[in-house]
Amino acid sequence: MSKIDKVVLAYSGGLDTSVIVRWLQDTYGCEVVTFTADIGQGEEVEPARAKAEALGVKEIYIDDLREEFVRDFVFPMFRANTIYEGEYLLGTSIARPLIAKRLIEIANETGADAISHGATGKGNDQVRFELGAYALKPGIQVIAPWREWDLNSREKLMQYCEQHKIPVDFSNKKKKSPYSMDANLLHISYEGGVLEEPWAEAEEDMWRWSVSPEAAPDKPTYITLQYENGDPVAIDGERLSPATLLEKLNKLGGANGIGRLDIVENRYVGMKSRGCYETPGGTILLKAHRAIESITLDREVAHLKDELMPRYAKLIYNGYWWSPEREMLQAAIDQSQSVVNGEVRLKLYKGSVSAVGRRSEDSLFDEKIATFEDDAGAYDQKDAEGFIKLNALRLRIAAGKGRDLI
Amino acid sequence: MSKIDKVVLAYSGGLDTSVIVRWLQDTYGCEVVTFTADIGQGEEVEPARAKAEALGVKEIYIDDLREEFVRDFVFPMFRANTIYEGEYLLGTSIARPLIAKRLIEIANETGADAISHGATGKGNDQVRFELGAYALKPGIQVIAPWREWDLNSREKLMQYCEQHKIPVDFSNKKKKSPYSMDANLLHISYEGGVLEEPWAEAEEDMWRWSVSPEAAPDKPTYITLQYENGDPVAIDGERLSPATLLEKLNKLGGANGIGRLDIVENRYVGMKSRGCYETPGGTILLKAHRAIESITLDREVAHLKDELMPRYAKLIYNGYWWSPEREMLQAAIDQSQSVVNGEVRLKLYKGSVSAVGRRSEDSLFDEKIATFEDDAGAYDQKDAEGFIKLNALRLRIAAGKGRDLI
Amino acid sequence: MSKIDKVVLAYSGGLDTSVIVRWLQDTYGCEVVTFTADIGQGEEVEPARAKAEALGVKEIYIDDLREEFVRDFVFPMFRANTIYEGEYLLGTSIARPLIAKRLIEIANETGADAISHGATGKGNDQVRFELGAYALKPGIQVIAPWREWDLNSREKLMQYCEQHKIPVDFSNKKKKSPYSMDANLLHISYEGGVLEEPWAEAEEDMWRWSVSPEAAPDKPTYITLQYENGDPVAIDGERLSPATLLEKLNKLGGANGIGRLDIVENRYVGMKSRGCYETPGGTILLKAHRAIESITLDREVAHLKDELMPRYAKLIYNGYWWSPEREMLQAAIDQSQSVVNGEVRLKLYKGSVSAVGRRSEDSLFDEKIATFEDDAGAYDQKDAEGFIKLNALRLRIAAGKGRDLI
Amino acid sequence: MSKIDKVVLAYSGGLDTSVIVRWLQDTYGCEVVTFTADIGQGEEVEPARAKAEALGVKEIYIDDLREEFVRDFVFPMFRANTIYEGEYLLGTSIARPLIAKRLIEIANETGADAISHGATGKGNDQVRFELGAYALKPGIQVIAPWREWDLNSREKLMQYCEQHKIPVDFSNKKKKSPYSMDANLLHISYEGGVLEEPWAEAEEDMWRWSVSPEAAPDKPTYITLQYENGDPVAIDGERLSPATLLEKLNKLGGANGIGRLDIVENRYVGMKSRGCYETPGGTILLKAHRAIESITLDREVAHLKDELMPRYAKLIYNGYWWSPEREMLQAAIDQSQSVVNGEVRLKLYKGSVSAVGRRSEDSLFDEKIATFEDDAGAYDQKDAEGFIKLNALRLRIAAGKGRDLI
Repeated sequence: MSKIDKVVLAYSGGLDTSVIVRWLQDTYGCEVVTFTADIGQGEEVEPARAKAEALGVKEIYIDDLREEFVRDFVFPMFRANTIYEGEYLLGTSIARPLIAKRLIEIANETGADAISHGATGKGNDQVRFELGAYALKPGIQVIAPWREWDLNSREKLMQYCEQHKIPVDFSNKKKKSPYSMDANLLHISYEGGVLEEPWAEAEEDMWRWSVSPEAAPDKPTYITLQYENGDPVAIDGERLSPATLLEKLNKLGGANGIGRLDIVENRYVGMKSRGCYETPGGTILLKAHRAIESITLDREVAHLKDELMPRYAKLIYNGYWWSPEREMLQAAIDQSQSVVNGEVRLKLYKGSVSAVGRRSEDSLFDEKIATFEDDAGAYDQKDAEGFIKLNALRLRIAAGKGRDLI
Repeated sequence: MSKIDKVVLAYSGGLDTSVIVRWLQDTYGCEVVTFTADIGQGEEVEPARAKAEALGVKEIYIDDLREEFVRDFVFPMFRANTIYEGEYLLGTSIARPLIAKRLIEIANETGADAISHGATGKGNDQVRFELGAYALKPGIQVIAPWREWDLNSREKLMQYCEQHKIPVDFSNKKKKSPYSMDANLLHISYEGGVLEEPWAEAEEDMWRWSVSPEAAPDKPTYITLQYENGDPVAIDGERLSPATLLEKLNKLGGANGIGRLDIVENRYVGMKSRGCYETPGGTILLKAHRAIESITLDREVAHLKDELMPRYAKLIYNGYWWSPEREMLQAAIDQSQSVVNGEVRLKLYKGSVSAVGRRSEDSLFDEKIATFEDDAGAYDQKDAEGFIKLNALRLRIAAGKGRDLI
Repeated sequence: MSKIDKVVLAYSGGLDTSVIVRWLQDTYGCEVVTFTADIGQGEEVEPARAKAEALGVKEIYIDDLREEFVRDFVFPMFRANTIYEGEYLLGTSIARPLIAKRLIEIANETGADAISHGATGKGNDQVRFELGAYALKPGIQVIAPWREWDLNSREKLMQYCEQHKIPVDFSNKKKKSPYSMDANLLHISYEGGVLEEPWAEAEEDMWRWSVSPEAAPDKPTYITLQYENGDPVAIDGERLSPATLLEKLNKLGGANGIGRLDIVENRYVGMKSRGCYETPGGTILLKAHRAIESITLDREVAHLKDELMPRYAKLIYNGYWWSPEREMLQAAIDQSQSVVNGEVRLKLYKGSVSAVGRRSEDSLFDEKIATFEDDAGAYDQKDAEGFIKLNALRLRIAAGKGRDLI
Repeated sequence: MSKIDKVVLAYSGGLDTSVIVRWLQDTYGCEVVTFTADIGQGEEVEPARAKAEALGVKEIYIDDLREEFVRDFVFPMFRANTIYEGEYLLGTSIARPLIAKRLIEIANETGADAISHGATGKGNDQVRFELGAYALKPGIQVIAPWREWDLNSREKLMQYCEQHKIPVDFSNKKKKSPYSMDANLLHISYEGGVLEEPWAEAEEDMWRWSVSPEAAPDKPTYITLQYENGDPVAIDGERLSPATLLEKLNKLGGANGIGRLDIVENRYVGMKSRGCYETPGGTILLKAHRAIESITLDREVAHLKDELMPRYAKLIYNGYWWSPEREMLQAAIDQSQSVVNGEVRLKLYKGSVSAVGRRSEDSLFDEKIATFEDDAGAYDQKDAEGFIKLNALRLRIAAGKGRDLI
């Protein structure tokens, strides 16, 4: 590694990344640029400014990226009905490429030669940040303090704070939680603590965004979601910006106990890990998108999307948002969405979301053909015989030659 | 078609198939063998005997196929976490190959040269019955009365009954429902009636197997499901036969409002169709199987299964259970399941099923490595740098050559 | 079927389709519009005019579709390195959607209510014509005489000619071959005759487009093919139109004994069939396209293309060119091709084509990194350790838990 | 890394690995066990014994692994018609897991705590050796000298020999080639030298196993290959062991100029690399296996295999032979092969191999159905209409609703 003059740090304003500021200054003798983003994590970002200033940072970036996050990352991902390992809605994964992109943009603006982040060496996030950074600026250097330093316990971090006179209120004592958490407009996640025992049930007071189904209202909430080109644009007839729409869905879902998930997942770095997630709005969006697609997408297009989806989800989970193969898949997915328009009516009730109605100008549902009643010749039942006979031909030939299936 | 002497009919004892008995006798001048199976549809099958006798049938088969159904069809399918179009648990589809197999076995035993069924020419079931039959006995002839006759309304059927003196109590008047229904141990389905309008919500009194989430108990039910080789074998420590286990899960799920589904699906014959389903036990099984796999399966095996699943689901939906390609996929799926052993703890509550704990002698979850605490060197965080650097190499080279991802 | 007033027939001018003209006139009492296309089959199309006139046809379409064929069908297909069942370059399959499209355009222009073609009821071509037609004009009617009439032998056809005074020189006696042949700019195919015995070797005098490797020149021919956006645009520096380029490659390949193929393939209608093919230019194009992609495409994009290709090939083989799923796949394929620019040097010699050199402004081949010599730090070999260690982690954990791979 | 007492080295007897013996002894102060395998590389392995002894090695393993190599690695791989990136027959890749397995077996027998190999830090082979080793013995340590030492040029190696009195005739001067080569029963490969410029044609005198097509006999050679369960068992009626059979095919292929390949491939470590390969026998086997499958495999099984193949090839290329996902795929592939029996007749001529005939007791080719002549009702052409109509239904509905494909 050549000498580093200036580094852009993804800075939350919390204890860990505040320590990193000082550690970077001391270890690399370099200038630190901080970057703090509002991606809907639910905390004020402006206070990060004073903290950074107190640490001697001169170039401070504080951005509201909520609309960009939902419009350019969350919505494109939901066009594919994306789920990792059958369960996980990729709430953390999808935010990382946006951070990586912004880190590189700021490095370009400020002439920095490195970026840094507070992700550990065991997790997926380091991979997502760094793959993105390298893909967007191949000569960039990356400093991952958690892989370099020996401050690998809370005690050592606190000691470091004292030694370096980093104000301890940076440590957000009030919020101190036994869990490692991550939040953005799409979800909040919990890892660590008692969750490290996969047999142990998560405690009720861990969950922050949703009431328990037990505590949800006794009456269902009905909403209508409107789609254009595969993206939701309105709730109950009210057009909303992407971030506002997702925020509102989070409220509606959370109030009805929707979107809790408790899984063991496979990390890209090779280990299994227990995680709990709350994704109220995302859970609704997945259900709604499938419902609007169910009447507007061609069957084979829908099936092709289903077969490509696990691979697309894996790309995002593993940190390859910024890759030509993700863009190639996205081209296919997006190509399919121009007909995905219409409305879905949803019932939210005590932890469940159901699609109870769907309609569209672009509907391919043909009541005249599908009906159990007389269809006036729209469909000739006799066609089915030839259809079956020829689909069976290869099976009949094989059976006739003695091939045995049982 | 050559002359038909004897035909085996899948006979429910209801109005439609009773008409078919007489129509076959009259139209083909052939002997009719009836076959009635208990696959858990929840109706007595023995009464079919007297009805068949009254219609002059001499060879009457009445079989209890519940254990075979769950053991050899439902469980193998759930090993793949099978879902069609992201939602449907294939309750109807998976029963058809068993019926087809039994029809052919009976044809072989009785020397029949044809089989017959009461499925319409618009649906998937005709395809499933007939593909199975042709695959198992290539020279068999198939009579599908609904594609041949002109009795295409209830009135004409009733008229036919009168003309041919078929007792009208065959028509099960009490049960007359506005929906076309199908049931077996895995599910009950509803089509037709008001459901033909996809925007219309299903009426509450349509559902038969589950209480509404609203009406479910206010306290959650916890159960522990034990797996061996990918199949569930015990509930709360009590070993149960496949059918008994599924039956119990249906009760547990139904009582907690679990397993309702309302979708528009794509039929193999080319049209979209609205269907509502109740699959209480199956919904629990899907969640539980994913949970036990989450700690026992290798990551890449799990991902491979996820990528193959949509194709496997489509094969079953389209009627290709009895095909060499399904058997080839099954070989891969089954090969992965010998390690899928252990226990899953589940919470059932007002329409939702959540996995809250999982444990196994075969667990690959390694708390020593996954921990957020000091791992005593079990994992070297510095390895991550090389991992990321080489995974990024192709991206860095491309970016260095000016390829632009944004 | 409702009454038919006017039908557009894909008319070759040969015996079979001439009989069809008269048979349509007689059987349906309708007007026949003939459509004859030059797609490079190597026969004059203009003579079809007089023949059609002689049969009383008033609206006669004769089109030169060679450029459209290569530009809009052959080239897009080769962007995917398309091969069916590992061997077949889809020469027949890819011409059919163009014919179907033109039949429908002419039906629209002439106000015809039906189309007709001379493909038999056993083959793939009927499916390709008709799926295309239905997809482009859903209300169109299709008349497939070979599925309807009983003129199913040469003798009956000749007899029909006599009865209906169809000039027998329509039967192209000179060219009478024991094989059923099809030709266009991409290939010529042979079926039937002795080929119906898959153990019998094709006779040397069957092949028409290529010399035998034995008869090819003793010195290799070298050519350089230039690509832009995934399509070939020049040979040895000479820019050529798509059709001209393919024509020239056919000559070069044919002269060097390149592109013969003898296979048993699986038809969509369910049977296996023996076919022999000559695809001289296409064989060269496949090799060249892979070679130019090998230095310009990202690895994961290339692999994704390889995994999608069999499905894409199957779509084309089965007749689904005009389908939303083919267009979705095409979007992904085309998205990958903007970087596929550069030159490939090829050696043609006695039946073989080899890529011996490739270069491109868009090359991702990085000699500084790939070199066996000192790379001046372009690649840090120590990165490989972490890369391997983390890729092995899941395997090490599993082995540590006693999982056995041997 | 803990202290190493004994290391098993994959030892060729050449200069590089001889230097490694001494370097390991000096650097780690450990005992070295050498392992030299005959996998058909065409060099005597016995001389390695004296060289190892001269270096003070006490435990020397020299194994003839040729039969195991072909039977348990090459043949299973060819059952899948495996090709990497459309061209490469994986000759190097498939030998590595066998070496890894044997290294671990010897480590277990000798109580060694580490293995070592002579692969560089830039290539795929280090990955293949090490992934295999970790997967089979998770606690094993790996020493990869090329990633650790600074002897990264021929001069430094020679200097090291002098300093450490390693006899310089170990360097195989006679064979000194400008290329980096690797050979085994399946192939010989060439990298480096002028090949590092992808535009430069490989020189004729580089190739060692095959005559040039120009120099091949003017008359074709015909052979018949017999298959059982997907593996070749006899040539021209003579049953041969796996290794003997492949050896003979190499001679036949090489004599006819078959199996040369010149490509740029994508390495797992992220770079593109030029390689030339001679795989005479393997090229024949690929053609022959596809041919025997073409008449014995069900269509959908064949297509499923084709879709899975690229992923299977990638696993082997990347070093994941010893992985549960490869074994899962192998289970599917092997399940399909019990019917792959019969004979293929092949023509070898001046660089080309063609299948000219194929026959089998298990053939699904049905001449009665496929025939262009009268089939006596074996196939009802009228079935095709219904087949096409229903396959077109979704397309017709979409077109009827105004969806536009052009």
